[in-house]
Amino acid sequence: MIAPDDRGFTLGHGLFETILWSGGGLRHWPAHMARLTKGCEALGMPAPDAEACEREARGALAALPDGTMRAAVRINWSAGPGARGLDMPAVPQPALSATAAPAPASRGSVRLHTSTIRRNDTSPASRLKTLAYLDNVLARGEARAAGADEALMLNTAGQIACAAAANVFWIKGGVIQTPRLDCGVLDGITRGRVLEACSERGWAVVEVRVGIEKLRGCEGLFLTNSLQGVRPVSVLDGEPIAQSPLVETLAALVANG
Amino acid sequence: MIAPDDRGFTLGHGLFETILWSGGGLRHWPAHMARLTKGCEALGMPAPDAEACEREARGALAALPDGTMRAAVRINWSAGPGARGLDMPAVPQPALSATAAPAPASRGSVRLHTSTIRRNDTSPASRLKTLAYLDNVLARGEARAAGADEALMLNTAGQIACAAAANVFWIKGGVIQTPRLDCGVLDGITRGRVLEACSERGWAVVEVRVGIEKLRGCEGLFLTNSLQGVRPVSVLDGEPIAQSPLVETLAALVANG
Repeated sequence: MIAPDDRGFTLGHGLFETILWSGGGLRHWPAHMARLTKGCEALGMPAPDAEACEREARGALAALPDGTMRAAVRINWSAGPGARGLDMPAVPQPALSATAAPAPASRGSVRLHTSTIRRNDTSPASRLKTLAYLDNVLARGEARAAGADEALMLNTAGQIACAAAANVFWIKGGVIQTPRLDCGVLDGITRGRVLEACSERGWAVVEVRVGIEKLRGCEGLFLTNSLQGVRPVSVLDGEPIAQSPLVETLAALVANG
Repeated sequence: MIAPDDRGFTLGHGLFETILWSGGGLRHWPAHMARLTKGCEALGMPAPDAEACEREARGALAALPDGTMRAAVRINWSAGPGARGLDMPAVPQPALSATAAPAPASRGSVRLHTSTIRRNDTSPASRLKTLAYLDNVLARGEARAAGADEALMLNTAGQIACAAAANVFWIKGGVIQTPRLDCGVLDGITRGRVLEACSERGWAVVEVRVGIEKLRGCEGLFLTNSLQGVRPVSVLDGEPIAQSPLVETLAALVANG
């Protein structure tokens, strides 16, 4: 249980990681731990002990129904108890917790809706998985209300940033493109794997800062995250999006089973 | 205690109110409850029962050390338990909790530091007291690191918005001015009381959308919030700010003891 004065609860002061467990393994565990450690700096928190994180994760997995083959493990590293107000406690006592839930592999494509809520790229939090994810919740809610599955978020300058719970890529003129991290984008682990897979194969891939008009006429649009890998987008704001065989190829390249 | 899958903890999905308790009373209780109720709409949550909130508040106050004369009561109304992910649960089961802490009356003036983190006025959350207050925490941290007491936040258009934990007012050409709510500003209860006190007395007061350059040459600058009332600003970004006797007058007008 979480203490009622935990700054993760009262202020969203903390970080999380969502890790895919499949084939009996916590996928890309070192990358998740490295990102969590790096994020602590921005939030003025000491980094968690990776072994303690793994124990918590295993404990949460052990409570899953027998026969679960694929699960989402969530590690929370919150700033812990603190006095009233915004100021950091003199001696931070962060709190570690974990939960796990069955997570069937996703199928099919995604309908995207551009959110009116912008990604606040002026905040370091826009590049982190923080316990203050309310803008993402509200953007997703807008998308659902519009009959879509997920929200596309632009940043405060109107440039393409990411989805509410995924990074975004598109293909145009044969070039694979994704927003730069300084657009206010999470340094996604699957995002990094896609970039690496493309580079290794010598495929044209670039990180860009561009407006949404650049998606017009794209040859493919897709989302990436740790739980669902690569997912093609079929519709953006009610308009059909072209389907590229390259998206399927990339999905296979970064698949975790 | 808070459940580890409470969306207030995992996503910052929820609201809070900070209420001054002094002279044996919860000050401006109806206004706080009205604001909390109004905010629920934006977050897709049912409103809490005001009587239940008051019981929680009284329970938290009862646990304070004997002889406490002045306290901050915090009511949390979080979206409650939910399945993994951003989507709202089909049947929201919000969770009510409250804490209380002694809160001595504040004295003296405030040194402000303009934050690099902008207030995300594109999000409804910018106008609410939400459990996703991390940008405010980070802005306050920047201010402390710069040797100041509090952060001044601009919005994404570079207009003056508010402090990390207060509304902001200034006096220029004899006119009392404060940012409009659509600048990305909490509808502060003390802010409303200052506006009302000025209007009642026929004092010139306006809500504006302006850049920070308009603070240059101001005759006074002050902050307002429920716990500390009106507090004069002495320094902004290292530059001294003129002191107006009007700020003291306003402080007395909205004082809660």
